[in-house]
Amino acid sequence: MPAAPRRLAAALLLLVAPAPAQEQQAATPRPNLVVFLVDDLGWQDLSVPMHRERTPFNDHFRTPSVERLAATGVRLTASYACAVCSPSRTSLLTGRNAARHHVTQWTLRPGQDPSQRARGLRSPDWSTEGLQPGIPTLPALLREQGYRTIHVGKAHFGALGTPGADPRALGFDENVAGHAAGGPGSYLAWHDFSAAWRNGDRIWDVPGLERWHGRNITLTEALTIEACERVRRAVADGQPFFLYLAHYAVHAPLEEHAPWAARYRESGSDEREARYASMVEAMDQSLGAVLFTLDELGVAEHTLVVFTSDNGGLCFNARGRTPAGTGDYTHNAPLRSGKGSAYDGGTRVPTLVAWARPARGDDPVQSAWPLQPGRTIDEPVLIDDWLPTLCHLAGLDATTRCDPLDGHDLTPLLTDPAPWHRPTPLVWHFPHFHNHSDATLVHGYSPHSAMRKGRYKVVHFYDRGIWELYDLATDLAEQHDLAATEPALLRTLATELVDRLDALGAQYPLVEATGAERRPVLPD
Amino acid sequence: MPAAPRRLAAALLLLVAPAPAQEQQAATPRPNLVVFLVDDLGWQDLSVPMHRERTPFNDHFRTPSVERLAATGVRLTASYACAVCSPSRTSLLTGRNAARHHVTQWTLRPGQDPSQRARGLRSPDWSTEGLQPGIPTLPALLREQGYRTIHVGKAHFGALGTPGADPRALGFDENVAGHAAGGPGSYLAWHDFSAAWRNGDRIWDVPGLERWHGRNITLTEALTIEACERVRRAVADGQPFFLYLAHYAVHAPLEEHAPWAARYRESGSDEREARYASMVEAMDQSLGAVLFTLDELGVAEHTLVVFTSDNGGLCFNARGRTPAGTGDYTHNAPLRSGKGSAYDGGTRVPTLVAWARPARGDDPVQSAWPLQPGRTIDEPVLIDDWLPTLCHLAGLDATTRCDPLDGHDLTPLLTDPAPWHRPTPLVWHFPHFHNHSDATLVHGYSPHSAMRKGRYKVVHFYDRGIWELYDLATDLAEQHDLAATEPALLRTLATELVDRLDALGAQYPLVEATGAERRPVLPD
Repeated sequence: MPAAPRRLAAALLLLVAPAPAQEQQAATPRPNLVVFLVDDLGWQDLSVPMHRERTPFNDHFRTPSVERLAATGVRLTASYACAVCSPSRTSLLTGRNAARHHVTQWTLRPGQDPSQRARGLRSPDWSTEGLQPGIPTLPALLREQGYRTIHVGKAHFGALGTPGADPRALGFDENVAGHAAGGPGSYLAWHDFSAAWRNGDRIWDVPGLERWHGRNITLTEALTIEACERVRRAVADGQPFFLYLAHYAVHAPLEEHAPWAARYRESGSDEREARYASMVEAMDQSLGAVLFTLDELGVAEHTLVVFTSDNGGLCFNARGRTPAGTGDYTHNAPLRSGKGSAYDGGTRVPTLVAWARPARGDDPVQSAWPLQPGRTIDEPVLIDDWLPTLCHLAGLDATTRCDPLDGHDLTPLLTDPAPWHRPTPLVWHFPHFHNHSDATLVHGYSPHSAMRKGRYKVVHFYDRGIWELYDLATDLAEQHDLAATEPALLRTLATELVDRLDALGAQYPLVEATGAERRPVLPD
Repeated sequence: MPAAPRRLAAALLLLVAPAPAQEQQAATPRPNLVVFLVDDLGWQDLSVPMHRERTPFNDHFRTPSVERLAATGVRLTASYACAVCSPSRTSLLTGRNAARHHVTQWTLRPGQDPSQRARGLRSPDWSTEGLQPGIPTLPALLREQGYRTIHVGKAHFGALGTPGADPRALGFDENVAGHAAGGPGSYLAWHDFSAAWRNGDRIWDVPGLERWHGRNITLTEALTIEACERVRRAVADGQPFFLYLAHYAVHAPLEEHAPWAARYRESGSDEREARYASMVEAMDQSLGAVLFTLDELGVAEHTLVVFTSDNGGLCFNARGRTPAGTGDYTHNAPLRSGKGSAYDGGTRVPTLVAWARPARGDDPVQSAWPLQPGRTIDEPVLIDDWLPTLCHLAGLDATTRCDPLDGHDLTPLLTDPAPWHRPTPLVWHFPHFHNHSDATLVHGYSPHSAMRKGRYKVVHFYDRGIWELYDLATDLAEQHDLAATEPALLRTLATELVDRLDALGAQYPLVEATGAERRPVLPD
C-alpha cells in the first residue's frame, strides 16, 4: 500500500477503536530526554575509557559524574560526529547527513566561509547560512509529541541575522544563551561572557545571560542553573521535557575554572593543559548537578540522557601526555589527529546513553527501553542517528515524518544484546580546507570524504586525488594504509562511497581556476 | 559595671533609640548557615591536603567539591573534635567541652556503656542517655534568631527512648533520618537502609526515609535530596536557614557506592579500601549538590558552609597506602592512630569554612565576615568553638546565652589575618577504654585526658598512670615523647590540664574493685 492510503487506513482504524499499542503508549509515561552535548571534547578527555583499555588520559582527567553514567548506562566506543561543529549540530537536529544538508563547515555570518583555499581548490557553494526553518527538527518533532523543548547553551545552527540563529525558530520552546556564534567570548561572568577582555570580536559575546554578569561564576555553572530551573518548571507543569544542554565548554578560549586547574599544574601539566582539564571538571560538575536535579524532581528514572561531543578534541596530532608548548591540549590518542581531520581523532566522540537513574524492578518506561548497565557497544554509529532514536523514545517513528532521513533508530542496538548493524555505512563529507593555520601543512585537514563500513574506513582527499583504506579493527590509529595492498576492497568501498555521496547530493570542492567541481576519481 | 546592670542599661538605651549597630544588623541580611558534618572522615581522606604538604592519600581520594570549598574558603589544619562521635556532636550543639557535658562516650541505650573494662578500671557514671533538652543548643539559639533549623542525617545525640533522641527536642524545627543510633543499617535503599540484610540489630535501621525504600539510591544521595528540598522551602518562605547535614557516611558498614569503587579496585586497592573511597566520593557529590542548590536558589553568596568530621578516621595505626587485609581503611597518617585514640589521628579532623560562593565586589554580608580564599590556618581549634562562631554570624553573642560556654568565637581567627590564639587550651577527656576489640592491646585507646596548648600536647593515661608530652610543631606524628626530657614543662602543662578538668567537673575513671575515682596523679 502506498504511504498516503496506509496512513489514512491507520487513521480510520483509530476512529473505530484504539489499537492495543496506542493504549499501552497512553498508559506508559513518555520519558524525558536530555542531550548533554559537550563542545570539542576529545575521545580520551574523560576518566571513563572509550578505548578498550584504560590509558593515562583516563587517569589524568577526573569525571566522576560521567563515570556514573557509564556504570549505569551503555558506552558507545565507536560513536561518530562530523569533524567540525555546525555540521554535527545540524545533523543532530535533522537526522540528515552533512553531505545532504550542505552545512559542511562551521558557520558564523551568511556568505562567510572560514575555509582556506589551497592547492587550487576552494569550498563549494555550501550553506553558509547554516540550518534554517523548513526542515523537521528533533525539537519540533518532540514538541508535537507534547514535549517542552529547552535549548540551553551553544546553538551554532544558523548564521548571524538568519532565522535559524535563534533556536526558537528551529523547534525549541525556550532558548538560553544560544545564537549564531560557536564559541564564548569568555567563560567568566566577571567578563560578562564577552570577548571584550581579549579584544575579541563582540560577535562571540554570549547573549541572554545578563543576570549573571559581573558575578563570580562561570558560564558552565550559569548554564547548568538555567537548564535546571527550566527543567524544574516543566516538571512542575507536568510536561515531559527535552533538555538540549549544549555546553560551550570545552571549546576555546582556555580559561581557568578554579579550583581545579591548580592540581593539574602541581602535577606537572602545562598551563593550557591545566586550564583545559579544569574546564572538563567543571563540565563534569554540571552533569552531576543535572543528574541531582533529576533525582530531586523525582524524574530521574524516566529521563534518558545522551552524553556526547560534537567533534574530536582540538589537536592536530595524536600525542603523548602534557608535552609543554606543543599546543595540543586535548587527547584523542590512540586515535589519529583531531578536530577538523578526516581521521578518527576528528570525528570519533565519547558517547554514553543512560537512564538518569536505573530503576529497580519492573519500571514500565525503562522496561520498554532497557539498557544494560555498564555495557560497552563497539558498533559504529553516527550523530545523524540521534533524531530517529530519540523520536522513538517519544513514541514517534521519525521515518514517517522525516523524508529524507539518513540516521537510523539505534533502539535495537542500545536495548537488545543481539548483534545489530547499522543498515547503511557511515559517511563523512568535508569539502573544505580546515581553517586552522596548519591545516594545509598537516595531512588530513584538506577537503575529503570518508566512509566507515564495518571494520573498514575509506578516505578520499580531493586535493591530492588519493584514496586511503584502514582496517580499524586492527589499526585504530590509522597508521597502515591498505590502499595499495587491498585494491579490490578499496575500489568496492570507494565506489559505494561515491554512489552514496551522489545520492546524498554532496557538493564537491571547486577548482579555483575554472569553478568546476572536483569530483572524486575512483581508484584503478 | 556588673553584668546585670550593664544589660539593663543597654536595654534602656534600645528603648530610647536603636543603636547604630542594630540598625546595620537589620539592614544586612543574616547569612544562612550550613554545617556539613561527615562521620569518621579521616584527616587525609580528601584530595585536599590538610597536612602542610600533599601526600599520596590526597592523590588517592577524589573530592573535587571539597577542593572547591578549600579554594574559595579557609582551611583549618589543626581543627579538633573528640575521639568518638556522641561527645563531638554534643559539644557541637552545646559549645561545651566533653569533660563538662559528660557525654564522653558514644551513646545508644540509656545505661548502656560500650566501653571495655580493663586493668582494673571502668567508666565513670557518664551520661549514657546523651544530650537532653534543657541546655541552650546551637539550633535553638539560631531558631530564636529567626532561622529555620533543619536536621538531616545522623543525630546520635540522645539515647534510645529519651527525648534527646529526637533532634526536634534539641532545637531543630525539622528532622530527617536522625535518631539515637550512630550508624546506618545500610546505605542502600534496596536494603531499606536497614541492618536486616546483615542480620544486624534493627536499632540501626535509619528512620523516616520510607519514601526511598526499595529504590536504586544510596542513603547519602537520599539525605542530600531531603536536605536540598528543605533548604528550597526555607528560601521560598524567605526564612534564613541553618542546615545541619550530618551524613551517616563515611561510617561503617562499608558498602560499595557505585560506580566509584571500580576505579580504586582496578588501581590496586583492596576491597574495603575501594568501598570506602567510593563512599568518600559519594559524600563529595553530595557536597557538590548542596553547593549547586545554594547557587540555583541564589543564596550561595550569603550562605556560610562549615565542612568537618566528628572524629579521626577509623583505624588503629597510622599506615601506608592500601595494605591488603590490615583492616585499616582510612588514613590519618602522618598523624598517629585513629578514631578513639588520644593521639591526633583520633581527634584531628579535616575542616573548611567557606562562603558557598565568594561574592565579587562589596557584598555587605561577606564584607562583614570576610574570608580570604585559599587561606590555610594552623591555629588549633576545637569542635566546641562552632556554637559561638555560628551564633556570631547569626547576630548573637553566645556568651550572653550560654553559661557555661567552653567554646570560643573563631570570628577573629577566620576573618582577620592578624594572629589570634584561642584564649584557653584545647582539652580532651575520654575516661573509657574504647570499645574496639584491640583497644586494650594498642596503646592510646585506654582512658585518657589530653590538652593542647600552642605547639605542645600533654596526654595522661589513667590505666598506666603515665604522662606523655609531644611537640606537635616538630613531631606531628607524636613519636617523640618529651616527658622525660622536659619534666618542668610537663609538670606545668599537666597541672593546668588537671586544674581545667576539675574546673570542668570531669568524671574520672573508676577503680573496679573499690568504685573510687582514679584521679590523674601529677608527674614528679
